[in-house]
Amino acid sequence: MNLDQITRQLIELALWEDIGPGDLTSRLTVPAETPGQALVRARTPLILSGLGVFKEVFNQVDPQVKVVFSAKEGASLPAGQTVAEITGPARSILTGERVSLNFLMRLSGIATRTCQLLEAMGEGGPKLLDTRKTTPGLRALEKAAVVHGGGYNHRFGLFDGVLIKDNHIRAAGSLTAAVTRARQGATHGFKVEAEVEDLEQAFEALRAGADILLLDNMSPETLKEAVALVDKFFAPEPRRVLLEASGGINLDTVSEVAKTGVDFISVGAITHSAPAADLGLDWL
Amino acid sequence: MNLDQITRQLIELALWEDIGPGDLTSRLTVPAETPGQALVRARTPLILSGLGVFKEVFNQVDPQVKVVFSAKEGASLPAGQTVAEITGPARSILTGERVSLNFLMRLSGIATRTCQLLEAMGEGGPKLLDTRKTTPGLRALEKAAVVHGGGYNHRFGLFDGVLIKDNHIRAAGSLTAAVTRARQGATHGFKVEAEVEDLEQAFEALRAGADILLLDNMSPETLKEAVALVDKFFAPEPRRVLLEASGGINLDTVSEVAKTGVDFISVGAITHSAPAADLGLDWL
Amino acid sequence: MNLDQITRQLIELALWEDIGPGDLTSRLTVPAETPGQALVRARTPLILSGLGVFKEVFNQVDPQVKVVFSAKEGASLPAGQTVAEITGPARSILTGERVSLNFLMRLSGIATRTCQLLEAMGEGGPKLLDTRKTTPGLRALEKAAVVHGGGYNHRFGLFDGVLIKDNHIRAAGSLTAAVTRARQGATHGFKVEAEVEDLEQAFEALRAGADILLLDNMSPETLKEAVALVDKFFAPEPRRVLLEASGGINLDTVSEVAKTGVDFISVGAITHSAPAADLGLDWL
Amino acid sequence: MNLDQITRQLIELALWEDIGPGDLTSRLTVPAETPGQALVRARTPLILSGLGVFKEVFNQVDPQVKVVFSAKEGASLPAGQTVAEITGPARSILTGERVSLNFLMRLSGIATRTCQLLEAMGEGGPKLLDTRKTTPGLRALEKAAVVHGGGYNHRFGLFDGVLIKDNHIRAAGSLTAAVTRARQGATHGFKVEAEVEDLEQAFEALRAGADILLLDNMSPETLKEAVALVDKFFAPEPRRVLLEASGGINLDTVSEVAKTGVDFISVGAITHSAPAADLGLDWL
Amino acid sequence: MNLDQITRQLIELALWEDIGPGDLTSRLTVPAETPGQALVRARTPLILSGLGVFKEVFNQVDPQVKVVFSAKEGASLPAGQTVAEITGPARSILTGERVSLNFLMRLSGIATRTCQLLEAMGEGGPKLLDTRKTTPGLRALEKAAVVHGGGYNHRFGLFDGVLIKDNHIRAAGSLTAAVTRARQGATHGFKVEAEVEDLEQAFEALRAGADILLLDNMSPETLKEAVALVDKFFAPEPRRVLLEASGGINLDTVSEVAKTGVDFISVGAITHSAPAADLGLDWL
Amino acid sequence: MNLDQITRQLIELALWEDIGPGDLTSRLTVPAETPGQALVRARTPLILSGLGVFKEVFNQVDPQVKVVFSAKEGASLPAGQTVAEITGPARSILTGERVSLNFLMRLSGIATRTCQLLEAMGEGGPKLLDTRKTTPGLRALEKAAVVHGGGYNHRFGLFDGVLIKDNHIRAAGSLTAAVTRARQGATHGFKVEAEVEDLEQAFEALRAGADILLLDNMSPETLKEAVALVDKFFAPEPRRVLLEASGGINLDTVSEVAKTGVDFISVGAITHSAPAADLGLDWL
Repeated sequence: MNLDQITRQLIELALWEDIGPGDLTSRLTVPAETPGQALVRARTPLILSGLGVFKEVFNQVDPQVKVVFSAKEGASLPAGQTVAEITGPARSILTGERVSLNFLMRLSGIATRTCQLLEAMGEGGPKLLDTRKTTPGLRALEKAAVVHGGGYNHRFGLFDGVLIKDNHIRAAGSLTAAVTRARQGATHGFKVEAEVEDLEQAFEALRAGADILLLDNMSPETLKEAVALVDKFFAPEPRRVLLEASGGINLDTVSEVAKTGVDFISVGAITHSAPAADLGLDWL
Repeated sequence: MNLDQITRQLIELALWEDIGPGDLTSRLTVPAETPGQALVRARTPLILSGLGVFKEVFNQVDPQVKVVFSAKEGASLPAGQTVAEITGPARSILTGERVSLNFLMRLSGIATRTCQLLEAMGEGGPKLLDTRKTTPGLRALEKAAVVHGGGYNHRFGLFDGVLIKDNHIRAAGSLTAAVTRARQGATHGFKVEAEVEDLEQAFEALRAGADILLLDNMSPETLKEAVALVDKFFAPEPRRVLLEASGGINLDTVSEVAKTGVDFISVGAITHSAPAADLGLDWL
Repeated sequence: MNLDQITRQLIELALWEDIGPGDLTSRLTVPAETPGQALVRARTPLILSGLGVFKEVFNQVDPQVKVVFSAKEGASLPAGQTVAEITGPARSILTGERVSLNFLMRLSGIATRTCQLLEAMGEGGPKLLDTRKTTPGLRALEKAAVVHGGGYNHRFGLFDGVLIKDNHIRAAGSLTAAVTRARQGATHGFKVEAEVEDLEQAFEALRAGADILLLDNMSPETLKEAVALVDKFFAPEPRRVLLEASGGINLDTVSEVAKTGVDFISVGAITHSAPAADLGLDWL
Repeated sequence: MNLDQITRQLIELALWEDIGPGDLTSRLTVPAETPGQALVRARTPLILSGLGVFKEVFNQVDPQVKVVFSAKEGASLPAGQTVAEITGPARSILTGERVSLNFLMRLSGIATRTCQLLEAMGEGGPKLLDTRKTTPGLRALEKAAVVHGGGYNHRFGLFDGVLIKDNHIRAAGSLTAAVTRARQGATHGFKVEAEVEDLEQAFEALRAGADILLLDNMSPETLKEAVALVDKFFAPEPRRVLLEASGGINLDTVSEVAKTGVDFISVGAITHSAPAADLGLDWL
Repeated sequence: MNLDQITRQLIELALWEDIGPGDLTSRLTVPAETPGQALVRARTPLILSGLGVFKEVFNQVDPQVKVVFSAKEGASLPAGQTVAEITGPARSILTGERVSLNFLMRLSGIATRTCQLLEAMGEGGPKLLDTRKTTPGLRALEKAAVVHGGGYNHRFGLFDGVLIKDNHIRAAGSLTAAVTRARQGATHGFKVEAEVEDLEQAFEALRAGADILLLDNMSPETLKEAVALVDKFFAPEPRRVLLEASGGINLDTVSEVAKTGVDFISVGAITHSAPAADLGLDWL
Repeated sequence: MNLDQITRQLIELALWEDIGPGDLTSRLTVPAETPGQALVRARTPLILSGLGVFKEVFNQVDPQVKVVFSAKEGASLPAGQTVAEITGPARSILTGERVSLNFLMRLSGIATRTCQLLEAMGEGGPKLLDTRKTTPGLRALEKAAVVHGGGYNHRFGLFDGVLIKDNHIRAAGSLTAAVTRARQGATHGFKVEAEVEDLEQAFEALRAGADILLLDNMSPETLKEAVALVDKFFAPEPRRVLLEASGGINLDTVSEVAKTGVDFISVGAITHSAPAADLGLDWL
């Protein structure tokens, strides 16, 4: 099962929970042969994301429904802008309307919130990354939405990156033990990232041979001290580890964090708490 | 496929997208036999929802993981309150941590937001209902979260209620045509609800025999006029239709809408834009 | 999984149980490239039903097989009438023959039996309804066959109608308790139907607020008394509940029941005991 | 997928089509914790079949439901006899009642009809066989019901026997061609059976080396002639092929066919047109 | 599930285990629109098998990839010979390369080894058969490879032949008991084969009425004695049972066994121990 | 779908292709209640692998079958050694015998061949790695068998390592382009490995920044030159890339390759051409 298959299965679930054994109202009120035509429009300014899944929903409902987009993913749209024209059997459009919009509104909401954070950060600083705090079943879609909003992706899941977090450290006994085991056991293609909560842990991780440090829940001041500590560790050579700041960073605080010298900022709220963007389907 | 099966399949998808072929870090850093123990705690005040799915995630990861709850769904918790104790193989707890929390945070966020709207509405007024604007795949969970927050559920999907919306009316040709067809074609066990956008449409729906009116996107003043219109239609008998207000109602406006005399207020934002509640898993 | 998907899965099961790992005889006796052509004919007079599933069987066996119908569902056919012409690879026609006919014979049998009951009832009386006493897996097909035979459908299943039967009443404690709970708990889109076994129960159901009464296993005389009782309850207004007669009604008794003044007659035997209609596939 | 898996999947489909997203009435009228107890009783005399699938239905609905049988498959029961006692959560019993009975009534109807044919045939004659004219999805169950009624099974499907029918002969060009190819191509573990419609074809089949002859749609007189023809072919040795009579044999004609000297009589109507036996579930 | 479906599911598993959530290297190094073209070539002399599955792998990876073969299954190819040309999106060819070759190399290895045995056997003797000692999941493919190499197939599995082996005999109590039960209980379309380990057992099997004898693990001398014993049993008529030699026969010994007078030789090693043939995919 | 699920699905396929609709012989010859007991024994010396899947086969056939092992995976067993005792219903043991042994023989064959290569290599040299040239569907099992035989695993598939092969280089345009893109696009947790065919390419890969070099199809002399080249590139510091030799290495050549100074030797033949080990199931 690859990522496209997950998304297709999720659409199946979403259509099933909405339609179940059948769409009563459309069947009762609209004759079977009635043609339909509708426009999808942004009702507020937004960054667009989710066009692929939007179209796939209608494809699963009825392959006769045609969706033609007039805007691209990642585009910044004003309120009122048309996003797509939908034509096909009226019943099928009505049946697929809610699920397709539910996807589009959520994903455009994430792209929009990502873009807002980037504007707050300004240019030239660290990269903005997402996390694994995504909606269950929508990770591939939400990570794409982050890219549409201008951000970058962290590892996709537990299988494509070695990231030692606080609870791994406690379960392993010590940060040094965890990092050492990871370096020995991982196939030679992987680097090792370790989460650290203070300067002491950062130093321990450096000595244990971590390739990347995740600086968790540190204030901008502490972040700056951590950056200095690491630079000193490698001096006079340039630092050979990457630094990532994370933990409770939001629209108000991201600007300051961006100036601390880290390489990455990762923010869970761009996926778990972005309000839905407002889009609607208007019948022609 | 019943609703429990949808949820179980969604958990499968969520675990698959996160774990994929395997959890590298836990396997590398924590020996196979290491026992684990952890507490889930609220990090901010919240209304709790999602305990069933939280437990089921761990059950799918590894049936040896035991989850014991110390709070109930629907409970209002202060920051710091313990929600659950988790024991079992350390690797399995680490593997299931993120997905289980992703569910719990989202659902508790919805319950919390529902509760906030109810507090804004005050007591004794209309019932607060959810809509079909839910996260794809999570409808049963999110509708339960609304109940945990104190709200009520509208129909689950397209199969268990007849609700004629604006686009049905346009596709059917007229509101009267749509309502008439629905009354004739539905099995005798169903009532017919019609969405109306102004007083004229409300009157048309009444004459066509709708059993329930959905008053869409009306200001509090117009809502009051609609209530008066309907009452007059049935006078001197009590009104024999139910009235539901919907459309862009939020924390700021719900209080006024609640005083208009409608029977129900339905709010999409309690499911599509509730920020996640903050909960974390602390290793013991 | 919607109803079409159930039917497609049932066809898969039916083909699997018949073909299993392969059709030995066709493979051994007929060369791979041999073209085939055959006619399906009614061998006795019948009402036709099941064309869609008949065609879908061949579609699953081999999409190269083409089926062209020369009669429509619901048509009354004399013995000898051609129903369909089938062309395609001879092996594939031979492989799909039995399963496709098994569906067609059963469904046409149900349509035929339904039509026979309607003829016995005469015109102008109550509607003839089916029940949930259908063959496991074939409900959607058999309910369509009832419509092809001239009947009407009751609710499809347990999810799209509230019907309180004798065992619900006993489990709930009393008819009044069951009806009251159903009225309070059902979403406002549903009416409540209650099964009653005598006049006393009928009266209790009326007082409890049932919207529809299912008059179970009553003689024509008792049915007339029940109709009178209900009419009196609402007098001088017209009765505001619907009445359905059910229980052991057959070709011999349906005529009398049809004159009792009920709104519906529901008959399980049209689905559970209709003999198969006789159709065959003749090679050209 | 073995035969048990087909049955389990069929039960899934049957429960799904009946319950869909949920059993409204039981949930609304019966409190969750209510215990239930009920008896299944024969309402008319019958031969019992279907106990395994009956129990499995409840097992799929809710493993807490316990079913204890007081009669065995194949038993001849008088009206009123108790078949099973069911205990468990009341809601679950109510939810599974209809589907479980739908299976039991159909299968007991087949066993009963089989037994009636056997009584008409008398003892000492040919074996009574079923055919592949079974209900799609229920073949294993219906073939077991035939055995419970005293009959024997023909091949299960197209994969476990070589049976050359009229349409194979036409597609192959000639009976001789078809039989010859089957003898050459089949793995050495299979015998070859050929359907013949008259004495001339019977003789052709003998010469081509068929091991079994299916004498199709012959009158009792013609059947006797066919038996004589075959005996003469092998004389003075005993005949080395088996003879099976088939085609439109029913309760009225089976007695005479049984006296013709054939080895087997196969009857499609015992599976495709047996009326359901009447059984009901009474709450205690 | 028929045999094609098993193969398609196996390909799904094979692609999944190789690709999992995605092919990192192709995505990173090759731009999405890059066209690709490659040749598959034999690197050593071989008998070709597996073209269908080879193509189906690419079809599952990406239906845009086109595969055109320049050699047929069963052909004997010199080293360097081109087998197929592949064109399509470069990324998709790279993604499917390994799995498609893994199939082709294994199956061509089996066809090649089969051919080698046949050459050792010489012409005019018994048929060379495969066994059920195939790679799990690849039986249909490997049995086809045996045919491509010039061999014949034994029964496919446990469902399409009655073959009583040593362990059946021990579990049944005696060879006579096992053969007798099989003859009585099998539907009349099946012959009965019995494995025997010495002449005494061979004689017992003959008396019990076995139709085929599997002579297991006998030396060429004993095989000759067994053939003589059986011929004598039926003399003066020709023997009416078939004889199959099996057990540890290899390239060195097959020639002698072929001269013993048996009808079949079955060899497990042609499927379980054939070395892979060497084929490679060269980019153009 | 994780790796265990792949194996479970493969077992399903393997049982299905073998058993299909049912095991005729066991059902016919062995009474249902007969208990069974058997030993699995090595018939030739071997390294054991596949115990988990062996047991799971019986578990899927019938959970009543108990398997108790008397040897561990990775153990070196003499001919005749008992591996497992199996008890349970005789029919179920007979039904699962072939498939379970097919797995065990293949996997033990791979472990045994791996061990033979290691003995040829001697101690203290490079690590012996497997490749992706595994049997479709059995990768996880075969990679475990390599470990049981004393080898190490390369990346599992395309998703958990970046390895640029010859065809990637041609599709990308140049080795430098491919390596550069991989370094830029991969998430920061991955190293980049590049396949090189001669010293020139090796030098290009070093300059492009590859972290690991796969030295493909080089003679032992060229391998030594490549090692020297790389060491010189980094001198006076120790070399900062890893070196892997691959391509056509076998029992005859591995010893010399092991002395060239590379870090790893990877060999496809240990999985694609290992002959099956011989094990059998003897009834008690």
